[in-house]
Amino acid sequence: MPDMQNLFYLLSFLTAVIAFLFALYLYLWVKKQKVENAEIIRVSRLIKEGAETFMTREYKLLGLFALCVSALILIILPKPIWQGSVLSNIKMVVSYLAGTALSAIAGKIGIMVATLSNGRTAEAAERGLKDAFLVGFRGGAVMGLLVVGCSLFGVAAVLLIAGDTSILLGFSFGASSLALFAKAGGGIFTKTADVAADLTGKVELGIAEDDPRNPAVIADNVGDNVGDVAGMGADLFDSNVAAMTSALVIASSLSAPGIRNTEMVFCYAILGLIASIIGIATARVGKDGNPTKALNSSTYVTTAVFLILTALSTAFIDGFSWRIWGSSTTGLIVGLIIGLTTDYFTDDTKPIVRKVAHASASGPAFTILSGTSYGFISSMPAMVGIAISALISYKLCEPIGEGYAIFGIAMSAVGMLSIVGMIISNDAYGPVVDNARGLAEMGGLREETIRIADELDSAGNTVKAVTKGFSIGAAGLTVISLLGAFMAETNEVLAAAGKDLIQGFDIMEPTVFFGILIGASIPAVFSAMLILGVDRNAERMVKEIHRQFDSIPGLKEGNAVPEYAKCIDIATRGALKELIPAGMVAIIATLLVGFIGGASAIGGFLLGNIVSGLLLALFMSNAGGLWDNSKKYVESGEKGGKGSAAHKAAVIGDTVGDPYKDTAGPSINTQITVVSLVASLCSSLFVALSLF
Amino acid sequence: MPDMQNLFYLLSFLTAVIAFLFALYLYLWVKKQKVENAEIIRVSRLIKEGAETFMTREYKLLGLFALCVSALILIILPKPIWQGSVLSNIKMVVSYLAGTALSAIAGKIGIMVATLSNGRTAEAAERGLKDAFLVGFRGGAVMGLLVVGCSLFGVAAVLLIAGDTSILLGFSFGASSLALFAKAGGGIFTKTADVAADLTGKVELGIAEDDPRNPAVIADNVGDNVGDVAGMGADLFDSNVAAMTSALVIASSLSAPGIRNTEMVFCYAILGLIASIIGIATARVGKDGNPTKALNSSTYVTTAVFLILTALSTAFIDGFSWRIWGSSTTGLIVGLIIGLTTDYFTDDTKPIVRKVAHASASGPAFTILSGTSYGFISSMPAMVGIAISALISYKLCEPIGEGYAIFGIAMSAVGMLSIVGMIISNDAYGPVVDNARGLAEMGGLREETIRIADELDSAGNTVKAVTKGFSIGAAGLTVISLLGAFMAETNEVLAAAGKDLIQGFDIMEPTVFFGILIGASIPAVFSAMLILGVDRNAERMVKEIHRQFDSIPGLKEGNAVPEYAKCIDIATRGALKELIPAGMVAIIATLLVGFIGGASAIGGFLLGNIVSGLLLALFMSNAGGLWDNSKKYVESGEKGGKGSAAHKAAVIGDTVGDPYKDTAGPSINTQITVVSLVASLCSSLFVALSLF
Repeated sequence: MPDMQNLFYLLSFLTAVIAFLFALYLYLWVKKQKVENAEIIRVSRLIKEGAETFMTREYKLLGLFALCVSALILIILPKPIWQGSVLSNIKMVVSYLAGTALSAIAGKIGIMVATLSNGRTAEAAERGLKDAFLVGFRGGAVMGLLVVGCSLFGVAAVLLIAGDTSILLGFSFGASSLALFAKAGGGIFTKTADVAADLTGKVELGIAEDDPRNPAVIADNVGDNVGDVAGMGADLFDSNVAAMTSALVIASSLSAPGIRNTEMVFCYAILGLIASIIGIATARVGKDGNPTKALNSSTYVTTAVFLILTALSTAFIDGFSWRIWGSSTTGLIVGLIIGLTTDYFTDDTKPIVRKVAHASASGPAFTILSGTSYGFISSMPAMVGIAISALISYKLCEPIGEGYAIFGIAMSAVGMLSIVGMIISNDAYGPVVDNARGLAEMGGLREETIRIADELDSAGNTVKAVTKGFSIGAAGLTVISLLGAFMAETNEVLAAAGKDLIQGFDIMEPTVFFGILIGASIPAVFSAMLILGVDRNAERMVKEIHRQFDSIPGLKEGNAVPEYAKCIDIATRGALKELIPAGMVAIIATLLVGFIGGASAIGGFLLGNIVSGLLLALFMSNAGGLWDNSKKYVESGEKGGKGSAAHKAAVIGDTVGDPYKDTAGPSINTQITVVSLVASLCSSLFVALSLF
Repeated sequence: MPDMQNLFYLLSFLTAVIAFLFALYLYLWVKKQKVENAEIIRVSRLIKEGAETFMTREYKLLGLFALCVSALILIILPKPIWQGSVLSNIKMVVSYLAGTALSAIAGKIGIMVATLSNGRTAEAAERGLKDAFLVGFRGGAVMGLLVVGCSLFGVAAVLLIAGDTSILLGFSFGASSLALFAKAGGGIFTKTADVAADLTGKVELGIAEDDPRNPAVIADNVGDNVGDVAGMGADLFDSNVAAMTSALVIASSLSAPGIRNTEMVFCYAILGLIASIIGIATARVGKDGNPTKALNSSTYVTTAVFLILTALSTAFIDGFSWRIWGSSTTGLIVGLIIGLTTDYFTDDTKPIVRKVAHASASGPAFTILSGTSYGFISSMPAMVGIAISALISYKLCEPIGEGYAIFGIAMSAVGMLSIVGMIISNDAYGPVVDNARGLAEMGGLREETIRIADELDSAGNTVKAVTKGFSIGAAGLTVISLLGAFMAETNEVLAAAGKDLIQGFDIMEPTVFFGILIGASIPAVFSAMLILGVDRNAERMVKEIHRQFDSIPGLKEGNAVPEYAKCIDIATRGALKELIPAGMVAIIATLLVGFIGGASAIGGFLLGNIVSGLLLALFMSNAGGLWDNSKKYVESGEKGGKGSAAHKAAVIGDTVGDPYKDTAGPSINTQITVVSLVASLCSSLFVALSLF
């Protein structure tokens, strides 16, 4: 059925272009908004420059990394060059570079628009909640549209040109390696600045969060952008591409009479993007409305539109299967449920946050113990949700034919990620309004304006919890399907070599078990290294801030301007320096396990990695959000309010939670994807060269 | 070869009796030591009474629990009674009760001797290090000898009488359920008292750790005994029985010409006990010697003796295999290596503890972040060690014949646990000398005596880290072999029903995967519930302490005696109340997964449980030890010493670490064993009644 496939390529390009045009429209709309306050213009320019400095350096380092990887790919992937596969290897390199480039472009433009919107949102808040919400949301939505548009465009283009799903793994790996830099690097940057700013400003000097006397304040605002906009965008670009890639790799190994596998993957991705466009276009808040509700209701609109559109497509297109639709729907619904349970554990109107705030009254040790405990407990609903979703989608698609069971899981991931355009928009809204709040304060805007900015910011935090739960859930399902993709790839290699195919990975096999235990320890080590990186880097920045306060006369009194750029520089250097070893540990462990235990050990390794990675990512993200909101709850006047012993304890919890939720937790996703793709790409090497 | 088997039963009983007699000798020797200081006699009686109160209540509750479980077993296990298996079911009940009873007796006597030794050790310290060490060590060794003697005796007796290894699972389950009560309940008790005593004493009033004015001080000392002596003893009784049981269950399903499987299991267990007796008998420290070295060198003596004796037995007994000897040796050596890496992460003469102390200078958030990070990193060497040990022992024994590979892993666990008598002695030494230190202070003994007691205490802490790493490693291998035992049991059921046997558990099967994800979340939830239990209970006790200080005139000035018993009562009630729900969650989840997904889901469930359980247990135990020692390092005068900001931060780290290392971390072991045994016992039910 090649005609139909071409039609869907065409539709993919078309939808992507529509998304780009809509993003352009939103960009121009945001740009048209007026920004007049001189201080806001000045500071937002500083933030923009800081973000660009970081992105430029990051992309340079990434370029170097990509060059080395390209050379390696050229020589050995998908097959060693001496086995006469030059053309495939060149295709793989190009595909890899396209993956990094597209993600990088989406990130770069997203940052540009976000740093354009923050000041405009602050000034719009002078006119009221309604306008300010729209500016902030649309600024974030540009990123959402670009990410999904680029990923759909890229996947379709690579598959159309290369004609081979194996080459798509290269594209996905490109997206992953960029995400590793953007998410982990950005995460270290943002928390370095946040922690150092809080420690020196709030704790030592007792000044407000966004006080312009603090040398780290601009770095802190830059961090929101590079970590939460660019980093998160790259992360979801990666997840989205990985979900589509694994579905397509598995689809290419399937055959059942009358089922259009590949077409369904593209069709659902297209419809997800259309649903997101509709959701973004309809997002509004009334004059005295609730921004949290507005964000959530646009998510529900997107979900409903997606479900209806996919149901219609399944009903009317010949060769689309209701069973596969069921899998995709299961994924999406479970994604929402995971988001809602995350909300339960991190929302300050619900009991858990209040319990942690209550524990803070007994001292910081109890803040930590209770937050850690509820963080661990909060991982269970999501794990169970993923488990059930995998089981249902497997059982739904199993009757279609051999191999369809795993395809069902892959489509479940595609379904969960279908509304990713909307998710990113909601997520990128957060840092824009967070910055806007800071700018409103620094620009000396009215009390009422700051209150509005606060309200917008608080909605951003609430929604973030949901989207984070959602994206971890999606990553969970995606990597299960990547495990399926790894098996499909390996079997292709084994079949070509005339060897026995792998039927599965038996945990009673010692090589599998060996892989599982080592794979399980990697996310723990990886996240620990990132957290220690933040610690070390924050220590450097605190020293620099002390130096500035000691050596710049009049700084404490507000009569001199601090050297903001020095702090940005420290955060940038440190982030890139600390991220490399953590990434290398994960990649080298994969190669070691593969060369020692072969394909079966890698199967176990990936499983262990997924299981402990999911557990730790959920734990860290939720515990971090929980501490953050319980601090805010205390600051709202509960348990003695600001300045009380409970508040001090809650601040310590928040500081611990910061690198959990914004550095380590979300980077684990990327680590899992990177490792899974390295494994799939190297499958032929492991088959040929392993010790056992 | 029944004659040889009977010989080994006989030898098992004989060795157990020798161990009992040696324990009796040590008990009488300790009892003979003089204790004359009136205050020490008074306080150590209070500790003894407190410990007995707790044990009595615990055993009553356990009795009730055992009664319910017995009723259930009688009706449905190993097969439902209506399938005509009355005799087997009665045997199973008796075996289960014997398991609980033997472990309970060992715990009870161990506590008795430990509480007898503490005061005598304190007074012996007046005469010098050499004497005090011997009293403390021998007091602990009674427990070590009893535990290993009872487990060997029990296993041999049950197997001899019942003649069926399935019945042995009941014995092992009895030991496990006691361990759950003793370890988790004791862990909650000890940390409730410790945390409450520290918070009110050290933090609020600024009085010393063992100041008799603190109403929680006796409860704290009682806690050391019930948590670290009775709890730890029950835990290792459980591990040791589980290791032997799984090896024997697997052995019974094996047949290779000329190999004496069952005999080797008993022979190695016997030789391990003999080696421990020799190690215990030779433990000495010179007049100015180093007690840490003395403890470690007796461990090495035991190891060497065991290796030589097992090599001799393998060489001279017909039907013993060198491959199996290799597996056992691998386990033992890896156990030592895990212990040593644990030491690296928790010893204050090594860099990690110092780094955490350094981080404390930047505030408590950094104490927590760095301790958490190194805790996570520290899990890797042990995970890799277990992985390698499993791989090697599997590969070593695979050539012997079908099923021997898993038997190799089981023997690796038996090997690792062979020196458990020595391990328990070293571990029980800790609380005895810890108590002795407190008694020396309360009894107003000389400065020099307190210094000696301090030195003995510090050696106890260092050795504890090693033994803890060791016991987690052993539990890891044991549960892998329990997984093998589960498969053997299930296949027996399947064979009897004429169904297809299980060949393994494929992670690409959705039911297996479903089980894995849910199994992995259980240790997180279980440990979180225990920690929250400690929090809640400590809060109650702090309230009680405040009440006493407010309402008893002259208490703060030391002119009145606090109501120690009230605090003991709170710790006891709370411990038992908080432990039940955590245990039930684990057991109910096992049954749910089994009835939903059947045997394959349970296979996955056990694997997920093992993997995340090992990771979290290692993390929590090591992070806790690390914080404890970095606090002590700061207290020794580093980073500003006592009272500095770094010290305050380090104390917060220690408080967080307390329930990690003494409640949740070590209880996870027991949780895994309980769940594995429930699964094995219910295998026939799962096969008959599961949904999928």
